[in-house]
Order: sequence, then structure tokens, then C-alpha cells
Amino acid sequence: MENVKVAVIMGSKSDLPVMQDAIEVLKFLGVEVFTTVVSAHRTPKRMYDFAEQAAGKGIKVIIAGAGGAAHLPGMVASITHLPVIGVPVKSTNSIDGWDSMLSILQMPNGIPVATVALNASKNAGILAAQILATSDQELAGRVVAFKNELKEKVEESAEEVERLRF
Amino acid sequence: MENVKVAVIMGSKSDLPVMQDAIEVLKFLGVEVFTTVVSAHRTPKRMYDFAEQAAGKGIKVIIAGAGGAAHLPGMVASITHLPVIGVPVKSTNSIDGWDSMLSILQMPNGIPVATVALNASKNAGILAAQILATSDQELAGRVVAFKNELKEKVEESAEEVERLRF
Amino acid sequence: MENVKVAVIMGSKSDLPVMQDAIEVLKFLGVEVFTTVVSAHRTPKRMYDFAEQAAGKGIKVIIAGAGGAAHLPGMVASITHLPVIGVPVKSTNSIDGWDSMLSILQMPNGIPVATVALNASKNAGILAAQILATSDQELAGRVVAFKNELKEKVEESAEEVERLRF
Amino acid sequence: MENVKVAVIMGSKSDLPVMQDAIEVLKFLGVEVFTTVVSAHRTPKRMYDFAEQAAGKGIKVIIAGAGGAAHLPGMVASITHLPVIGVPVKSTNSIDGWDSMLSILQMPNGIPVATVALNASKNAGILAAQILATSDQELAGRVVAFKNELKEKVEESAEEVERLRF
Amino acid sequence: MENVKVAVIMGSKSDLPVMQDAIEVLKFLGVEVFTTVVSAHRTPKRMYDFAEQAAGKGIKVIIAGAGGAAHLPGMVASITHLPVIGVPVKSTNSIDGWDSMLSILQMPNGIPVATVALNASKNAGILAAQILATSDQELAGRVVAFKNELKEKVEESAEEVERLRF
Amino acid sequence: MENVKVAVIMGSKSDLPVMQDAIEVLKFLGVEVFTTVVSAHRTPKRMYDFAEQAAGKGIKVIIAGAGGAAHLPGMVASITHLPVIGVPVKSTNSIDGWDSMLSILQMPNGIPVATVALNASKNAGILAAQILATSDQELAGRVVAFKNELKEKVEESAEEVERLRF
Amino acid sequence: MENVKVAVIMGSKSDLPVMQDAIEVLKFLGVEVFTTVVSAHRTPKRMYDFAEQAAGKGIKVIIAGAGGAAHLPGMVASITHLPVIGVPVKSTNSIDGWDSMLSILQMPNGIPVATVALNASKNAGILAAQILATSDQELAGRVVAFKNELKEKVEESAEEVERLRF
Amino acid sequence: MENVKVAVIMGSKSDLPVMQDAIEVLKFLGVEVFTTVVSAHRTPKRMYDFAEQAAGKGIKVIIAGAGGAAHLPGMVASITHLPVIGVPVKSTNSIDGWDSMLSILQMPNGIPVATVALNASKNAGILAAQILATSDQELAGRVVAFKNELKEKVEESAEEVERLRF
Repeated sequence: MENVKVAVIMGSKSDLPVMQDAIEVLKFLGVEVFTTVVSAHRTPKRMYDFAEQAAGKGIKVIIAGAGGAAHLPGMVASITHLPVIGVPVKSTNSIDGWDSMLSILQMPNGIPVATVALNASKNAGILAAQILATSDQELAGRVVAFKNELKEKVEESAEEVERLRF
Repeated sequence: MENVKVAVIMGSKSDLPVMQDAIEVLKFLGVEVFTTVVSAHRTPKRMYDFAEQAAGKGIKVIIAGAGGAAHLPGMVASITHLPVIGVPVKSTNSIDGWDSMLSILQMPNGIPVATVALNASKNAGILAAQILATSDQELAGRVVAFKNELKEKVEESAEEVERLRF
Repeated sequence: MENVKVAVIMGSKSDLPVMQDAIEVLKFLGVEVFTTVVSAHRTPKRMYDFAEQAAGKGIKVIIAGAGGAAHLPGMVASITHLPVIGVPVKSTNSIDGWDSMLSILQMPNGIPVATVALNASKNAGILAAQILATSDQELAGRVVAFKNELKEKVEESAEEVERLRF
Repeated sequence: MENVKVAVIMGSKSDLPVMQDAIEVLKFLGVEVFTTVVSAHRTPKRMYDFAEQAAGKGIKVIIAGAGGAAHLPGMVASITHLPVIGVPVKSTNSIDGWDSMLSILQMPNGIPVATVALNASKNAGILAAQILATSDQELAGRVVAFKNELKEKVEESAEEVERLRF
Repeated sequence: MENVKVAVIMGSKSDLPVMQDAIEVLKFLGVEVFTTVVSAHRTPKRMYDFAEQAAGKGIKVIIAGAGGAAHLPGMVASITHLPVIGVPVKSTNSIDGWDSMLSILQMPNGIPVATVALNASKNAGILAAQILATSDQELAGRVVAFKNELKEKVEESAEEVERLRF
Repeated sequence: MENVKVAVIMGSKSDLPVMQDAIEVLKFLGVEVFTTVVSAHRTPKRMYDFAEQAAGKGIKVIIAGAGGAAHLPGMVASITHLPVIGVPVKSTNSIDGWDSMLSILQMPNGIPVATVALNASKNAGILAAQILATSDQELAGRVVAFKNELKEKVEESAEEVERLRF
Repeated sequence: MENVKVAVIMGSKSDLPVMQDAIEVLKFLGVEVFTTVVSAHRTPKRMYDFAEQAAGKGIKVIIAGAGGAAHLPGMVASITHLPVIGVPVKSTNSIDGWDSMLSILQMPNGIPVATVALNASKNAGILAAQILATSDQELAGRVVAFKNELKEKVEESAEEVERLRF
Repeated sequence: MENVKVAVIMGSKSDLPVMQDAIEVLKFLGVEVFTTVVSAHRTPKRMYDFAEQAAGKGIKVIIAGAGGAAHLPGMVASITHLPVIGVPVKSTNSIDGWDSMLSILQMPNGIPVATVALNASKNAGILAAQILATSDQELAGRVVAFKNELKEKVEESAEEVERLRF
């Protein structure tokens, strides 16, 4: 796990299709990632140990995704002093995602979770890179380049749309 | 803590005015209560230890109240096998109570929390008594008597209202 | 109906696919179950009689599932002194499940319903077992074992996910 | 109770300040009213008997107001064949009235409740009069006159506002 | 249009699949129905004329279904003194039906609309029959018989479910 | 009513404190305003006539404010071809403003209402001025100046805040 | 871009299927349209320049569609003095459209956005035409004719429905 | 502005009472803060310039608070590559805070905003410190100490509550 600076954890293996985007964008930006499943509810001890040891293992940022009554991001944030990014996952039987969103966002004073949009694990990855980039000039450059590419794609599609005849 | 069968815990001392009703109705029904503050987010270790040791200390039911991203009831339920009753508390800066309600109610498969209405700690107390009464005939009798009193109060107020002239 | 300690009732036969999980998990935990259809709205008398006689027949816990303006759990709870577990069912034409959820959860003081998550009848079954286990050591052991299995499944999937290469 | 055609019932005496408007508008329109307290949850038997006997006593329309998990209108409607008008009351600890509203409105097929706006017991009274007026020409005339007065009041306030200088 | 006592109107022909249930249940109960399309927004004059003339044509109850910003039931209620039953239709681009529901239900003082559940046009039909039955003993008998059939269907499915082996 | 280009109408005189802002900002921008009360529900005929005659009287834009099941803006828009700006008013017994907002915003295809934020009658006034300014250069100049003032006020308060010591 | 009076912009090319209706209805009404992609978030500079130059290029009205945290309409409105019509687009991972709707509608004092219903880009087109028609008699005539056609279509479908036998 | 690593900006001076907590907790943790007012809607140019120059001035993290259709955090995030923390402010006429929350949280792919709870500017400050602490061991130590104090306060209030007699 050397050089690994971001841990991407999720409450259940079924969250992987959503959480994959975080992993991929971090890889694309040249950030090593450690990925595992940690359930706040089914493996509370494992969750506790993971959160307590993360900083010592060199982890700088934790991304945690969970659905329903999504306690994983907040509980990990309560145990570590590392910044924790929460991804509300819209799971089956979720009430349209409101439960995951509010369970992650509405943390009490003292224990913030940096919450991103519903299912927006890609943004969680980018945010983790931005956080690391506050002390890593090269990574900052890659983030800037990434945002420029987004801009260029919009400009291309703008040209396309302007050429359309309705 | 001998004879204590119900623990009433809350995420913050500021939840006490809401949680007091649970304590009082349990006392009224002749059930001994242990009350303390356990914060899932500010004292995760304390929460873990409390939940792990509760059954061993003779506790049979845990009532847990919390507001906002209310993780206390669900996290305690994940650690103990005792039934956990969750009371969503409508705290300041809560989004009208929706956050507490969904954070407590929408638990994943395997880890139920018996959720009651917003701020309804009195009902949490009654439910705890009903649970203990499944193996305690005398307590069952007291619960039945309590419900009869509710009925009588309604009947009295019905008479009053029927006598009103509009 | 000897030895039957849990009744699983539902407002309509169409709720059976959801309510089946409660029955199965209770069977798995060695708890006998009686299942029937009782509609608060279409058979109010039948509902009244069922609730009034349940305790006398040896039932200890009632699980009631219903959708829409879901009155079954609350009405049964108003008639019996047994603990009632409510399962909000997300039925067709339901407003995303909010109606069932609020109709079951927001009971007035005096008449609690132990509400579980939307469609979470499996959790209703586990909660019923936890309630019975407050006076049944063997069942408590089976509940603990069941939770351990959940933990092990998460640990297995964690290993799987850690081995993935992205 | 001779000549009484509308019963106004409420789940708790605390609903009276809201339900009073229904009584008053009915009196104003010359309709006799019987008022009482009937709690679906605290006095289920009383509720059952009331609903079953209402038609026999000459009642033609029932207005039922309740808050929170408001089961009274729906349960009464399930027992009688009379039209039942439901008034969602915004009670304390209600989730902004959504719980009462959905618990009354979202009735299953077969058992309608004629729901009016939150706290709108005045409209419940008018609706009851409109229903009776379908077979009572004189009452129909009084309803028409009542609506004309509303119109005139708006016209007066329109004149007032038009004269204002800003 | 002789003998026609209920008009079923809808804002758009696309509401017909939902509104058909009202027509059918009324026919089943022996009530003649007149059905047409009246759009508050696209044909305001037609709507005005329809509402103004309805009582004169012998109509006793109007059922109006509409989706989105559903103004038809409320506007018709503002013009006639007949009882108006509103059916919130969950149309495409509706915000999960909340818009239709609130636009129909939350009428101001003076102008009630008897609102039924989302898409519940069957209940609108039954409610119309219940209203007519306040002055029609025979129809009252058919409504009672209809409700008995519902009860019997539940009892049959209860027997079926009780025989199931899980 | 010469030179009057904007009509500001409201469903009830009680909406005046909210709607006053529209009138004042229009006066400030040099636009003459005609103000009156028109209730879609209590004076449907008056509403119809007002909307039908508005264009003929030289009105170019109509601002309509209403609360609850707010039908006024949409109904006026259905009768006139003038642009109609809708102001959702958060009235008493409104469900937190959601009812007014959705009743005004969610208009069907063919009949738009230009909806502004809850209680935002000031913005309705500015929008009316912007619409008139599409063919009035001088007014456009005054709108630009107005927006510059907003900017300057922010810059002033920015300076103030930057000087604060915490 | 001569004669072009309405610009239809969208946050992403994926909004085109929704925004196309605005373009088509404007064409149908004889209004020239310029269409492009402008992302507030991915191309903030492009957005700034577009908004600043729009009036100078002869644009009279801007229609802007966006989903999720939809900032495009509001940001464009903050830069130009032209009327801006906002179309909330219900995009993937949107929370049922509530996010787009509230992000566009709830603008602060001083900066209105004329918001239309969810996905209602057709209405945005009609509203833009109505705005231009405040100073263009011929266009006003075409808008009136367009609304008449809507009326006739309803009348035709009314006849069809009236002929149906149920 | 030497040594200043965190900028705390807000859409309006009226947000200061909420945003003050962020400033104070950062000061307490030994982090220098620059505070100003930047309105996305009233001063879009100022906002653009601020965001573009922030990184060059040594700013590492931006905290942005805003209410209603809260575009400030997202727009700043679209212009800079620094991590942006968004604080949804519950302002007057906000729809219970839902508008600010969703406008800040639901950012599209590519442009994350690290959102904290409603009005939770204290948590925004702590999160900013946690981010800076990823490359500042001393600050990390102060964050850890701060969290320990929270724990101790809970333990003290737990003792107090345990001593209470009910």
C-alpha cells in the first residue's frame, strides 16, 4: 500500500458499480487508490479499525460511499481526523436517494463529511485529487488539465449543436 | 444497575428534554431505566463499548435518541443483538426532522432499528415496556391498564365536547 | 397454531412478495409464524377481532405490512398490547413510499408502532426475533450467529474487492 | 339528535380549535351538527361503534379531523357507507402536516375519503353542505348565497386596493 | 343526458386510462355518467360554461381529473355549487404526482374540492355514488353490497395465504 | 389607465404585503402599474373578464400572486396571450409554500407561466420591466442602472466585511 | 445571426432532446433561434462572454435549460439585463428534478429567472414568443392563433370522448 | 494576505452570522482566514476574478456560503482548481433550506463542491483545517486535540446525566 493516498471504501459490494468512477478518475489523475468493502452496520469493528489505522498507513483522504441510512462516511469521519468524502448511493428501496443524502450530509458540529451529489463518485475522486493537490503542484497541474479537457469537450459539442438545422 | 432492563441513551445532553418522556413513562410502568449520553460521532469508542457490553449487564432493550444525521440508534443496533428503539429528534438546523427520521429508519437488511415518530420518546418508552411484557405478565397488565386510561381520557373529553354549544 | 409466536399480517395479498422475507428469516431463525391477510379498510371487523384475540392465542409479536394510507399496523397496535412492527410497503400509486412510511411511523402518543425501512420486511422478521430473544437465550444465540454470518459475507466481499484491478 | 345530518368528529380534544370552523359554517348554513371526540387509536371500539351506527341515527355525512398518522377518517370510511370528509390537522410534532395529509388522502381502492386542505375544516363544512344540497333545494340556495358573499367581499377589497396609492 | 347525475371530466384525453375506472365503477353501481374533456387551460371558456350549466342539466356531482398544475377541479368548484371530486393524475413530467395532488387539494377557504388519492379515479366514482346515496336508499344498498364484496375478496385471499407453506 | 403597461393582481387582499414589492420596484423603474384583487376561485367571472380585456386596455405584462392551490396565474395565462408572471405566495396553512410553487410552475404544454421564487414579487417586478425593456431602450438603461446599484451595494458590504476583525 | 431574437442555450448536449421543443415551437411561430451549448460549470468564461454579448448581438430573450445544480439560467441572468427563461431539466442522478427546479427558481432579489415547468421547453419557447409579441403585433396574432389551435384540439378530443361507450 | 490559506466568502453580508463559525473555528485551530462578500448573482465579474486569482494568492481552500438558489460555491468551483467547501445557508424565503442544499450539493460530473450540513459553517471550517492538515503535521495535531475536547465534553455531560434522578 505504499504511495496509496486515497482509500475508496463502500458499505457493500453492490455499491461498486457506482464507486468505480472514483477509482478510475483517481487512476487517470495519477493517484494510487486502495479499495475495500467496510460496512458500518455489518462489520462495525472492522470499520472502527479501518478508520483508526488509516492515517498511520499513509492514507490522506478517505472516500466512503453508502446507501439508505448511510452511516459509513459519518462514522469513519468520527474516528479519523482525515478528510472524509461521502458519496450518497441511490440503492434499491432507498426513498429516491433522500435517505442516503441526508444521512451523509447532515452531520453534527465537529464531525464534517464532505458530501458530493447523489451517485457522484467521480466527483468524489476529483475532490480527493484537489485536496491532495493543495500540497502537490504536479497533481494540481493534472487537475487543471483535466478541467480544461471538460471545457474543450463542451466547446466541441457547442460547435456541433450550432451546426444543427432544426 | 441491578434490575435495570432498559437503557435510554441520547447523542447529546440537549436531547434530554425530548428523551425525558421515555424515562418517565417507563418509571410509571415500573421499569427501571439507566440513562446516559453516548455520541456516535464524538465518542465512537464509548458508543462501541456501551453497545457491546449492554446485554452482559442485563439490559434487554435500548432506546436511542438522536438528531440530524442520526447514526446512534443504527450503530448501536449494529453492535448488539438487543432490540434497539430509535427516536428521531428534531434538532436545530435539522431539515424539519426529515434527516433524523430517514437516518434512523432506513437501515439496511440485517440490522433493524424499531423507529418511532419524530420526538416520540414517550412511545419509545411504551414500546420498550411492551417488548419486556412479552415475557412479564405483570408488566403486560400494567401496559393494558395504561392503555385503558388513555381510552378513559378520550371518553371524558368526548363527553365534554358533546356538551359544548357552538 | 401452537408454538406460533409471531403473526405476519398484510393489508392485501399483493403485499406477499414483500412480506415473504419476514416469514423466511423467522423460519430460518427457528421461529414459527402464522401468516394471513387482514385489511384495516376492507375488513375492519376481521382486523379488530384478529388484534383483540392475538395475545390470547399465544402470539407475542405482530408484524404488519401495508401500503399507501397504511393504517393496518397502527390500528392493530391500538387494539392489542403486544408489540407491533410496521412494514411500509411501496405499492403502486403510492407517492414514492412516503405515504406508507408516514402513515405507519407518525403514531400519536400512547400507541407506538415499531417501524422499519420501506419494504424491509426482512428486518421486521429479525426485529421480531430480537424481541422474542429478550427472554429466550437459545434464540438470542441464533440471532448472534445470524449477525456473524452477515459480517463474514462482508469480509469475503471485501477480500474480493481488494483483489480487483481497476 | 333529531335532524342532525352531519357528525363532526376529531381524534383529540386538541383538534377542536381547528375543527370549530366546520361546525360554525354548517350552523351558518342551517345544518344541525353533532360533535364528539373519537380516537381511532385510543378508543378503537368506540370508533367502530360510532361508524357502524352513524347511518342508522340519521347521519348523512361524517367530517373527521385528525393529525399525525391520521387514521380516523379512513377507518370510519371503512366501516360506514356514508361519505366521509377528512381534515388533515397540522398537529405538534407532525412533519409539517405531510403525515396527516398523506395518511388521510392516500386511501386504497374501495374506500374513498373526501380530503380537504390542511386544517381546512371550514371547507369540510361547506363540502358537507354541498353534499346534502344535492337533495335539498333550500340548502342549495343557501350555499349559492354563501358563495356570492365571498365574491362580494373580494370585489370590495378589489375596490379598496385599486384606490391605494403606492 | 336524462338521468345522468354524475359528470366525469378530464383535462386531456390522455387522462382517460386513469379516469375510466370512475366511469366503470359508477356504471357497475347503476349510476349514469356523462364523460367529456374540458381543459381549464386550453378551453377556459368551455370550462366556465360547463361548470355554470352543470346543475341546470341535472348533474348532481362532478368528478374532475387533471395532472401537473391541475386547476380543473378547483376552477369548476369555484363556478358551480355542486360537490366536485378531484382526481390528481400522475402525468408525464409531473414531479412524482406532488404537483397534481397539491394543486387540487390545497384549495382556499370557501371553495372545497373533495380530493382522492393519486390516480384513484375508482374511489372518485365510489365517493360520487356515496354522495348520491345520501338521498337514494337503493343506491345506498348497492354501495353496501359493493363494500361487502371487497370484504369477501379479502377473506378469500386470507384463506389462500393461510394455506401457503413457506 | 393610460400608459399603464403592467397589471399586478393578487388572489386576496392578504397577499398585498408580499405583492407590494413588485409595485414599488416597477414605480422605481418608471413603469406605471395597475393593481387590483382578482380571485380565480371566489370571482371566476371577474378573473375571466379581467384576463380577456387586459391586452385591449394596453396592458403588456400581468403579474399574478397567489397562495395555496394557486390557480390565478395559470388561469389568467390560459385566457390572455400576454406574458404572465406568477408569484407563489407562502400563505397560512400552505404546506411550506410547496403548494403555491407547484400550482403555478407546473403548467401544461401551451400555457406557460413565468414563475419566480417564493414570495419574490420584487423579482416579478424586475422581470416585467426586463420584458418591457426588450422594446424600450430607456427602460433597458434603467434596468442596467438598477443592477449596477445592486453590484455596488455588494462591493460596499464586501469592504465592510473585509475590515472586520474576528 | 441577423434577425435572431431568441437564443436557446443548454448546459450539455445531452439536454438537446428536451430543449428541441423550444426551438421547434419558436420556428413554428416564425421566430429565428440561435442554439448552442454553454456550460456554467465547465465553461464559465464562455458563459460569461455569451451573456455579456447577447444583447449587443440583437438577442432579446434567452432560454436556458440545465439539470441538477442548474446554475446556467441564474448565472446568465446575473450578467445580462435581458429576460432569461429557465428550463429545469430532469437529468440522470437528479433527485427527481427537485434540484434543477429549485436551483433555477429560487433566485435572490434583483436577479429573476422566468422559470417554467420541469422539462417544459415548449412552454419556454411560447413564453419567449409572448415576450417578443409585447412589441410585435403580427407575432401576437400568431400566438393567439396557436392558442386557438390548442383549444380546437381539445374540442375535437372532447367530441371523441363523448361518443365513447363504456 | 500572507499566510492566509483559507478564504471564507459569502453571497451576502446577511450570511455573516452563519459564516462566522467557520472563521472562528479556523482561528481557534491557528489557520489564517480572509473573509469577504462575493455575490455570484449581483457581482458575477467580481466572483469570476476572485475565483481565478485565489490560487495565485496562496489560498489553498475556499469556503463559500450562500442561500436560496445558491450558485456561489458551484460557480467558484467551476473557475478554480482549489477544493471548494459549500455551506447551504437557510435564508428567509428559502424553502426550508432545500433550495440552498440541492443547489450546492447536486453539482455535475467534473466540478465537485464539498458540501456540509445546512448552516454548518463550523464544520466547513473544520473540514478546511483537515484538508490543510493532510500536509501539515502540526495542524493535524491541533485537529486531533480539538476532536478529543469534543469527546471529553460528551463524557462530562454523560456523567451529569447519569447522576440525574427522574
